[in-house]
Amino acid sequence: MPLWTVHHTPGIFSAEEKHGLAAAIADHYQEVGLPRFYVVVLFHELRPEDFHIGGEPAPVGVRVVIDHIARRLPDERSRRRTARWIREMLQPRLERHDGLQWEFHVDETSADLWMINGLVPPPGGSEAERRWAQDNAATAY
Amino acid sequence: MPLWTVHHTPGIFSAEEKHGLAAAIADHYQEVGLPRFYVVVLFHELRPEDFHIGGEPAPVGVRVVIDHIARRLPDERSRRRTARWIREMLQPRLERHDGLQWEFHVDETSADLWMINGLVPPPGGSEAERRWAQDNAATAY
Amino acid sequence: MPLWTVHHTPGIFSAEEKHGLAAAIADHYQEVGLPRFYVVVLFHELRPEDFHIGGEPAPVGVRVVIDHIARRLPDERSRRRTARWIREMLQPRLERHDGLQWEFHVDETSADLWMINGLVPPPGGSEAERRWAQDNAATAY
Repeated sequence: MPLWTVHHTPGIFSAEEKHGLAAAIADHYQEVGLPRFYVVVLFHELRPEDFHIGGEPAPVGVRVVIDHIARRLPDERSRRRTARWIREMLQPRLERHDGLQWEFHVDETSADLWMINGLVPPPGGSEAERRWAQDNAATAY
Repeated sequence: MPLWTVHHTPGIFSAEEKHGLAAAIADHYQEVGLPRFYVVVLFHELRPEDFHIGGEPAPVGVRVVIDHIARRLPDERSRRRTARWIREMLQPRLERHDGLQWEFHVDETSADLWMINGLVPPPGGSEAERRWAQDNAATAY
Repeated sequence: MPLWTVHHTPGIFSAEEKHGLAAAIADHYQEVGLPRFYVVVLFHELRPEDFHIGGEPAPVGVRVVIDHIARRLPDERSRRRTARWIREMLQPRLERHDGLQWEFHVDETSADLWMINGLVPPPGGSEAERRWAQDNAATAY
């Protein structure tokens, strides 16, 4: 976690641009303290006949689905802040495409139902998480 | 939002039938007041070796995952009504396939964690939302 | 429900291994009383350029997303038990791959927003559910 799934029509991203976006996303989460290897970004290309917006095949379109661990209490203000923070990552790379509709939403799920390499990740903000972040690896703790 | 992801085995839908289903889904949401461009429908074809039902590769199968904004209070009756309303869109197009198992579920997520073209969509039922619906476009409000 | 989506890089699973994993997953749910046909397992292969971990294309990676019906009260202990139970299904088949990062999380959604073949599945633990499990088929009840 976090998991980003970027559904997109053909021609939106080169392999280099995918790498650039995935690295920028990982940078952002790392800056707020998350182990970098937590960040998984999947790209899923769909032909216009498989990508409909408003009932019509979309020549260009990007739809991003993000899964986050729900760490905070349900609080509108912090969720809005998260959404703006996500916008920062996407907007510079997407708004240059003419006529592109791009949309994202975040789903929040429980940390208790999450494992990496069979390990329960350490609690958010813990010393063990900091070590995972420094080592950029999941180690027993 | 809403986002429909239709996972299906080969041969279930022609390009025309995908378009027809996506248009019917957009029609339904538009009828209840949603801007038509909110409705994104993705089709994801999987070979039987990638689509297992009950532990066996499925020659035919449809599994629909729907993401909705959670606008209402958690209320069993309105959720059941939503499920029946979704069934109406799918059943006429799917029940003609012999031996097809089709299943859907809806996940409800927070409106606060959602943006289109970098804009926070207007509140449900607001004047601004009605304008977005009339214009079928996301404009500053 | 449950729905497992296994995102993976090329070369992780042969067709036989996919079948084996899907069957093992169905076995586990069947053992706890679920109708076997409820269990849908999708495999989604992504090239390393479409599968980034920590901002880098991953030569090998597995990311599993599981959707469950939220049947129990929110209770950390039972969620942790579910996560360990899921680990049992995945670990023996994944830990033999050197350098593979594998991660899963579970999202819990509402039973009220779920249908199979246009039918509302019977309540968990009900006599009707037991009949569906025995028949391994969705029948009117």
